[in-house]
Amino acid sequence: MNPLPSVPHLSPSPESLVPDENEMSRTHLIEVKDLSRHAEATVTVAGWVETVRIHGRVAFVVIRDGTGLLQCVVVKKEVDEATWEAATGVTQESTVELTGSVKPDDRAPGGNELLVSTLSVVGPAEEYPIQPKEHGVEFLMDHRHLWLRSSAQRAGLRVRSEVMQAVHDFYYDRGFTRIDTPILTGAIGESAGTLFSTDYFGDTAYLAQTGQLYVEAACPAFRKVYCFGPTFRAEKSKTRRHLTEFWMVEPEVAFADSDANMRLQEEFVSYLVERALERCAPELETLERDTSVLERIRPPFPRVSYTEAVERLQAKGSGIEWGRDLGGADETLLAEEHHLPLFVYNYPKEAKAFYMKENPDDPRTVLCNDLLAPEGYGEIIGGSQREDDLDRLLHRIREEDLPEEAYNWYLDLRRYGTFVHSGFGLGIERTVAWITGRPHVREMIPFPRLMNRLTP
Amino acid sequence: MNPLPSVPHLSPSPESLVPDENEMSRTHLIEVKDLSRHAEATVTVAGWVETVRIHGRVAFVVIRDGTGLLQCVVVKKEVDEATWEAATGVTQESTVELTGSVKPDDRAPGGNELLVSTLSVVGPAEEYPIQPKEHGVEFLMDHRHLWLRSSAQRAGLRVRSEVMQAVHDFYYDRGFTRIDTPILTGAIGESAGTLFSTDYFGDTAYLAQTGQLYVEAACPAFRKVYCFGPTFRAEKSKTRRHLTEFWMVEPEVAFADSDANMRLQEEFVSYLVERALERCAPELETLERDTSVLERIRPPFPRVSYTEAVERLQAKGSGIEWGRDLGGADETLLAEEHHLPLFVYNYPKEAKAFYMKENPDDPRTVLCNDLLAPEGYGEIIGGSQREDDLDRLLHRIREEDLPEEAYNWYLDLRRYGTFVHSGFGLGIERTVAWITGRPHVREMIPFPRLMNRLTP
Repeated sequence: MNPLPSVPHLSPSPESLVPDENEMSRTHLIEVKDLSRHAEATVTVAGWVETVRIHGRVAFVVIRDGTGLLQCVVVKKEVDEATWEAATGVTQESTVELTGSVKPDDRAPGGNELLVSTLSVVGPAEEYPIQPKEHGVEFLMDHRHLWLRSSAQRAGLRVRSEVMQAVHDFYYDRGFTRIDTPILTGAIGESAGTLFSTDYFGDTAYLAQTGQLYVEAACPAFRKVYCFGPTFRAEKSKTRRHLTEFWMVEPEVAFADSDANMRLQEEFVSYLVERALERCAPELETLERDTSVLERIRPPFPRVSYTEAVERLQAKGSGIEWGRDLGGADETLLAEEHHLPLFVYNYPKEAKAFYMKENPDDPRTVLCNDLLAPEGYGEIIGGSQREDDLDRLLHRIREEDLPEEAYNWYLDLRRYGTFVHSGFGLGIERTVAWITGRPHVREMIPFPRLMNRLTP
Repeated sequence: MNPLPSVPHLSPSPESLVPDENEMSRTHLIEVKDLSRHAEATVTVAGWVETVRIHGRVAFVVIRDGTGLLQCVVVKKEVDEATWEAATGVTQESTVELTGSVKPDDRAPGGNELLVSTLSVVGPAEEYPIQPKEHGVEFLMDHRHLWLRSSAQRAGLRVRSEVMQAVHDFYYDRGFTRIDTPILTGAIGESAGTLFSTDYFGDTAYLAQTGQLYVEAACPAFRKVYCFGPTFRAEKSKTRRHLTEFWMVEPEVAFADSDANMRLQEEFVSYLVERALERCAPELETLERDTSVLERIRPPFPRVSYTEAVERLQAKGSGIEWGRDLGGADETLLAEEHHLPLFVYNYPKEAKAFYMKENPDDPRTVLCNDLLAPEGYGEIIGGSQREDDLDRLLHRIREEDLPEEAYNWYLDLRRYGTFVHSGFGLGIERTVAWITGRPHVREMIPFPRLMNRLTP
């Protein structure tokens, strides 16, 4: 039988939002990021060995503890034999625990070194498969669980984490209600050909490609809502812009028209960029991102109608014809004229989804927009004002030969107090790829899912 | 061809986090929550009709605009005939737009009334199917897209939205990195019998029941991490505690042992309760929640070992025997002695998952805990210290007859710098059900998925 462990007498101070350091770690360990508060003191740290260099009777062990890098200096004559042997024999990525005194040093990463008194290897590592040499992408992807430890991967995913929090903060501060929309859905979606499906207790469920129809339903309850979760596309695409599973944020606002929708988008994108600049400077430096191009990202963003975009593209020699959706190459051609993201608005009806509102000034088109990121990153947002007229929406559902019965609840939103409303979807991985200047979305998500990749 | 819309000249002030009101709505509409700033002024509002009462030559139209309720007073002799007819003929849930002057009135919900000058019906509603009479649960669930508009549903989902933001804020403020783990996974999971599966380009993918193994892999990169997303259980359960799709937050901390893990849990749960109390007082009042029981929720929480829990249960007449997991009835029996959540720790190995660390003081048990909410709400957290010994983990995988090859990458975490680490999963819907005092988790998620429910 186990003795009851003693209950720690934490001071019950719920008003303090940020806890004392080490509250949730073993209490004797200090995090590297906090070392400056312990200058000249003796502390214990733990982490993983990045490099060991031995210069005669001094060993320099650089460790990573997940909060920062720390150079630990082991001087042979000042430590016992066990520590010297551990320091000089330890392998890359072994877990070590070190005690020593904190020496401020402006040249050191993080501003401190540790003058080691004891070092012990608590988790020895076998020969580490990822080496500074060039590995093929497939090899790195096969070792994604270890590749995460590399500096560029850490930096990119830290920016992702910051951007994701910024998404929530942006909508929270503006009074939006978060509405988590279902992944498992009945027969709805943009295109049945690109849906994953699963048996659902004898029925068939599809993995959602969007939460839009559901956030629309929540508008009459909460006015301004958003969802933010994983979405799925069973597309046989192998481009650097595609994942089969990616995260998308989808706001929806009652009484907002297409113009208000674009204004929300430019405020939102500018905010995400600003947060990354403000709080991820070290990560952007690690990634060698030219931040001057990001500092210019402020509203308003330029706007061009689809019709004018087609004329511009044709003048540049593109074979695009009015009526077709823009391809990736067209998007790049258009966006390269601008250092700001570019709105392309009011596409032809047949190029876009059934739920977009017919443009009263030109019924061949719908009130919608894409937002194209600069520097060749392509579409990061698709948005529209929604068709709020019951008959017109029903007509479009029939025109597209969609299962009317499955959309009956969605049609109810037009039967019981219809209203002008708009929304959009922003893809997180493409946005973070652009902000960090990385070429491929697959590095912008911890464990990417691609057509040919389901593991690890 | 469409003319280029004028680009609004918003002041580019990215440092201001909260925008001017109406930035993302049609600019002439004021939100009900902001009316106190417009006392005695003439404003236009829009919303959905909750009730209409006519007393002779005065009509009282209560609208809901998603930010609050507003009583709008229409006096026949002060409005034109169109407005009077619209006000007296409008149906429940019709969308209306009203202009009038704001009259502060302490008795009114929100502190103001609107003295109407014009009212127009912009979206008339057919006869609304949800009436104040008692509807059956299946009827309400079939109309979930409309049921969301009801006051109790709005209140519950507002608390959910606040708690979800509180989850992110808690970990963000503590330096955790958010790691989004994949939904589509290869052959891993707690129990193959309760997995949803889908064809994945000729392969089979399973919908994740947990992100734990992935957040463990991220620890050596970021030290403190968490994931927060939907998880899936194809369980044939019809209890009020089960959903087939629910949201779970799973923190994982390097160098944290089981004791530190429980301390993090009690801080976290207390924080969520505190945020709801602080920022959702009107919603908790709507739900008639006894908040005095929530105000007592502060660390430390009581702890009882599994072994002692079995003795207590047996003394109370339960048929439980040492070695079996606790059932829902056992959990309720144990928790009813406490007004705080109760930790039950160190369960028998065979009752828990393979990845939990063997208890060195009693190898029949593992270093883990459940957290039982008070008031009969049962388990809201399951957590453990993870097995960090390669050989012991491999032994457990073979003992449970799990596919060793599929876990090879997970075993790598023990080959390349193993480390003490712990984590847990908290189910959002159960937690919000407890905080709001609602009996069933199905109301705690916007569009619940149950064994017999995949729509709307």
